[in-house]
Amino acid sequence: MQLFKKDIKFVRSLGQKKFRLESGCFIAEGLKLTREALSSPWPVHSVYSTDDAFIAEYPQTIKVTSHEMEMMSQLHSPSAHLVVVKHVPQRIDIATAPRIAILDGISDPGNMGTILRTADWFGIRHMYCTPQCVELTNPKVVQATMGSLFRTVVESAPAEQFIPALKAAGYRIAGAVLNGQSVYDCVFTNRHAIVIGSESHGISPTVLPLLDDRITIPGEMGAESLNASVAAGILLMEHHRQTLARHE
Amino acid sequence: MQLFKKDIKFVRSLGQKKFRLESGCFIAEGLKLTREALSSPWPVHSVYSTDDAFIAEYPQTIKVTSHEMEMMSQLHSPSAHLVVVKHVPQRIDIATAPRIAILDGISDPGNMGTILRTADWFGIRHMYCTPQCVELTNPKVVQATMGSLFRTVVESAPAEQFIPALKAAGYRIAGAVLNGQSVYDCVFTNRHAIVIGSESHGISPTVLPLLDDRITIPGEMGAESLNASVAAGILLMEHHRQTLARHE
Repeated sequence: MQLFKKDIKFVRSLGQKKFRLESGCFIAEGLKLTREALSSPWPVHSVYSTDDAFIAEYPQTIKVTSHEMEMMSQLHSPSAHLVVVKHVPQRIDIATAPRIAILDGISDPGNMGTILRTADWFGIRHMYCTPQCVELTNPKVVQATMGSLFRTVVESAPAEQFIPALKAAGYRIAGAVLNGQSVYDCVFTNRHAIVIGSESHGISPTVLPLLDDRITIPGEMGAESLNASVAAGILLMEHHRQTLARHE
Repeated sequence: MQLFKKDIKFVRSLGQKKFRLESGCFIAEGLKLTREALSSPWPVHSVYSTDDAFIAEYPQTIKVTSHEMEMMSQLHSPSAHLVVVKHVPQRIDIATAPRIAILDGISDPGNMGTILRTADWFGIRHMYCTPQCVELTNPKVVQATMGSLFRTVVESAPAEQFIPALKAAGYRIAGAVLNGQSVYDCVFTNRHAIVIGSESHGISPTVLPLLDDRITIPGEMGAESLNASVAAGILLMEHHRQTLARHE
């Protein structure tokens, strides 16, 4: 398939939120993410590659030169593959989702992507994110998910709406705070939705009073804090360990 | 104290490894890191600030304008404070160090800094790093440690030297691999040195055959992998939980 100048301009423009919102499209780069997008239920808008072998495999791919790829890419070192995906806003069905986590105001794209990747690893494929979170289709978020974006359901909604709905469905809301119960003593079930708070401000004032379980990761004197992704990994691992052990 | 043009040039040059090695100095930015450096045993070369209140507190501070700070800073949004610290290569005394971890070829500065910060949180203040790790005084590493750099002892040495020395001192070497024992079943003691492997290549071929305990963090089907900092956080937390519980 042929490449037009307007295609380059369009793909390039998806680095900006404004144009992502206008078009409803976003990009993912690299062989792994391109393959994940193609094999996912997400609708693919277009695929670009500099690699003939890949083009033979996916004939709908548009062949580009390295220079054209550089013009379209958001990466410092562009890869050979780029896919444009249509963003379909997702909804969680609380009644059928096996496990749910909550992302509350995660503003760093790298953390947002890493937390999605970690949740996916521990089998949590349904997540609510508050409107204060960085946009899910920001290119840095997409790259940091390492493909988990295409395997998970992330619904953006106000906490005032989804937390009462979760509680009505029997969920307990658990999150990390200062001076909570030690995570080493916590008892988690599959009906715990774990809240991951923001790097800078922790759990938001909207969510804080709604917590059923206030958890602290014990540290030693002198140290400052844990990175948001690391804290999330520890809570999600502990949740996984306990719910796995009990075969719930 | 007065600022000279050569000072600006010197501080700016510390963004480059070559000039850090030549001068033996590195920079840390922001009020928190500046305060941590000043109250640490590390020798401070010079302190710069745009803030009169801070200068009154630390009279040795050199006052700079925002424009001068911008010229010296390595950050996109420079803070009001910057400190130049002399790098004193550190040595670990295996006989007296209470807990030790090993960083094996961590190449991403953000991960390197985050892992130091996490180890510090869990009370591991002594770490070996292999020569393949990103340089400890890289500004991005320093910023990501959030000050833990100034509270920990990190010795850069070849694994062929320090691992036999650790084993001779009674340490077991534990690290994350594919198809190891589940971390949920591991028994850790203070005489376990945990190896954190690289983001891209895991534990190096030099260290791999020296592992006494091969550990896996169980994940669910389909997910790709865990981020290096997240995996490190989980192993260090589990080590902390078990050794804390036994009051070793």
